[in-house]
Amino acid sequence: MTTDQISITTATHKKEKPSQDQVPFGTIFTDHMFMMNYDTNEGWHDPRIVPYAPISLDPAAMIFHYGQTVFEGLKAYRAEDGRILLFRPEKNFQRLNLSSDRLSIPPIDEERMLEYLIKLLEVEKDWVPSTLKTSLYIRPFIISTEPNLAVGPSRTYTFMIILSPVGSYFPGGIRPVTIHVEEQFTRAAKGGTGMAKTAGNYSSGYQAQAIAKKEGNADVLWLDGAEKKYIEEVGSMNIFFKINGEIITPALTGSILKGITRMSIIELLQSWGMPVTERKISIEEVYQAFTEGTIEEVFGTGTAAIISPIGELNWQGQKMIINNHEIGEVSQKLYDTITGIQRGQLEDPFGWVVALS
Amino acid sequence: MTTDQISITTATHKKEKPSQDQVPFGTIFTDHMFMMNYDTNEGWHDPRIVPYAPISLDPAAMIFHYGQTVFEGLKAYRAEDGRILLFRPEKNFQRLNLSSDRLSIPPIDEERMLEYLIKLLEVEKDWVPSTLKTSLYIRPFIISTEPNLAVGPSRTYTFMIILSPVGSYFPGGIRPVTIHVEEQFTRAAKGGTGMAKTAGNYSSGYQAQAIAKKEGNADVLWLDGAEKKYIEEVGSMNIFFKINGEIITPALTGSILKGITRMSIIELLQSWGMPVTERKISIEEVYQAFTEGTIEEVFGTGTAAIISPIGELNWQGQKMIINNHEIGEVSQKLYDTITGIQRGQLEDPFGWVVALS
Ligand SMILES: Cc1ncc(COP(=O)(O)O)c(C=O)c1O
Ligand SMILES: Cc1ncc(COP(=O)(O)O)c(C=O)c1O
Repeated sequence: MTTDQISITTATHKKEKPSQDQVPFGTIFTDHMFMMNYDTNEGWHDPRIVPYAPISLDPAAMIFHYGQTVFEGLKAYRAEDGRILLFRPEKNFQRLNLSSDRLSIPPIDEERMLEYLIKLLEVEKDWVPSTLKTSLYIRPFIISTEPNLAVGPSRTYTFMIILSPVGSYFPGGIRPVTIHVEEQFTRAAKGGTGMAKTAGNYSSGYQAQAIAKKEGNADVLWLDGAEKKYIEEVGSMNIFFKINGEIITPALTGSILKGITRMSIIELLQSWGMPVTERKISIEEVYQAFTEGTIEEVFGTGTAAIISPIGELNWQGQKMIINNHEIGEVSQKLYDTITGIQRGQLEDPFGWVVALS
Repeated sequence: MTTDQISITTATHKKEKPSQDQVPFGTIFTDHMFMMNYDTNEGWHDPRIVPYAPISLDPAAMIFHYGQTVFEGLKAYRAEDGRILLFRPEKNFQRLNLSSDRLSIPPIDEERMLEYLIKLLEVEKDWVPSTLKTSLYIRPFIISTEPNLAVGPSRTYTFMIILSPVGSYFPGGIRPVTIHVEEQFTRAAKGGTGMAKTAGNYSSGYQAQAIAKKEGNADVLWLDGAEKKYIEEVGSMNIFFKINGEIITPALTGSILKGITRMSIIELLQSWGMPVTERKISIEEVYQAFTEGTIEEVFGTGTAAIISPIGELNWQGQKMIINNHEIGEVSQKLYDTITGIQRGQLEDPFGWVVALS
């Protein structure tokens, strides 16, 4: 199978593109999408680019009943010279296969997936916005489609890529957020699906997020499922702490997502001579550092915001105000460097950026 | 809104009904299905019975990405006098709303849901099979349908009921099964979604189930997510132990499903003067009882099998053979009584059965 076997059906009507400044996240989609099917006889087959349109599924399709599904999220950026840039896209496709493995979904050749994405982006290149801080959000996902109510892996799947132009995550500039430390609800347990990017991990957090938001918090910081003691991650972000000069992030113990931003930050800080300690970190340790005045910066990391400084942590009725609600020096430098590399404004010494030709 | 507002569109082509003895579980569906929509303006609206057919969804529909969905499972039985009987259906709709609450899905009036189901069964009454041990499996479910990649509750939903004729769970008669006690993977943690019937809880078990099956086990017995010490439940069944005359089932601590068969068995045994102890029970306690020869019966309970005797538990390389791989006296009596009540062959002193008029 080679890339040129991708069939392309062009949309007859093109949508109007949104004004670049006022795009809400994830509600506007481009004119085309990528699709490919799997069945046990043919394996993954029939890669195709088709007009963006509803898909038709049997009401008994397994995705509706047993949640066998995985997804990814990455972005395409427009450089000042007009080129379209991707940030470590191979890492997303590697992680998609890791997620698929956890969910008993057959893997897809990682290089092929990247070829499919690039082909789709070539078709949709006018949709990559050029205003500073806008981008084209890319959502690859796999759903189980066999109509069967018996609990067990599906024998048919559909892999899709859809594209959505997105505005700035911080329209008014970066602003540190307030985060609620969750004590009651659990996102993921050891031995569960926490390290996979799979649908059920997200809706299971809605109740906790609603309570946190009602109390004025932007999101939830999850603690480990066993003891509610160790810090895991925030909503759709990994988390870093700078305490007494040491930069710490929770180790990958199986219940948190291996963020690609996290990975890149660790490599970047390493190159700056600021090694990151990946280890267990308890909320008590953070609180202790807060009371001692040694907590310097806290920030979340993820594809959406890249760096989201955390200005306040609410835990058991205690307000921990961090760096006076201001953006820390390391946070700002990381944000500037990574977004600069992503947009082709800074040199890319790590070879992270893939440019469409 | 009253029941007669349900619109009915009759299928023009009726499918051939399967031979009653050889029906695989959950792959054949009847001619019609029930549908109803939710949006924030109208609430739940437009209840309708329509021909069974594929549904159309935007590729960005939230069900595909964040797994906000719940379901139920119950059965309709054909009595010897031809009546169609349901077993405690109100409990399923109560549980559906409990699951919805956990997943931030708006509730549906429970009496209305039962009316909708009964109306659908009236349309599909010829699909309720009459051979002994066959039944019509009923799958109500709710999916989140808003096209939006922002993580958070959907603003639109579809509630559906589909029906599937099913053969005997034990075609060759009840046979005790072998179960693997899972030490590595976790189904649900305290504070998670274990008490809800939601899609993600099921596919998260596929890997463990595949390993267990490869080693000759029928299913997995899950231990608690925190310590892997206390017994939770089996695949789609709750579990009961008879040890030294005492009948024990794991207490509902939030991580296991509140089975309707479980509840009925507790009430039935109570009425027989055999109270069930709902408490924490560790796998060590079971192993200890096994070595002391005091473990008399073990069985799983659920809508599919009603009672599934467990003849062997495999734990850390130890084979615990129970009751010489034979069906225990209590298991058999429970099976006969509950299935007898469900099919209208035995008196129903509890008022559990709902008959269609
Ligand atoms: C649960 C979770 N954690 C962390 C992240 C951050 O990962 P990445 O940096 O790859 O975007 C995400 C978002 O992708 C996520 O969904
Ligand atoms: C996880 C789980 N536990 C237990 C049960 C048994 O519940 P019930 O007796 O209501 O069928 C089921 C099946 O419905 C289930 O899915």
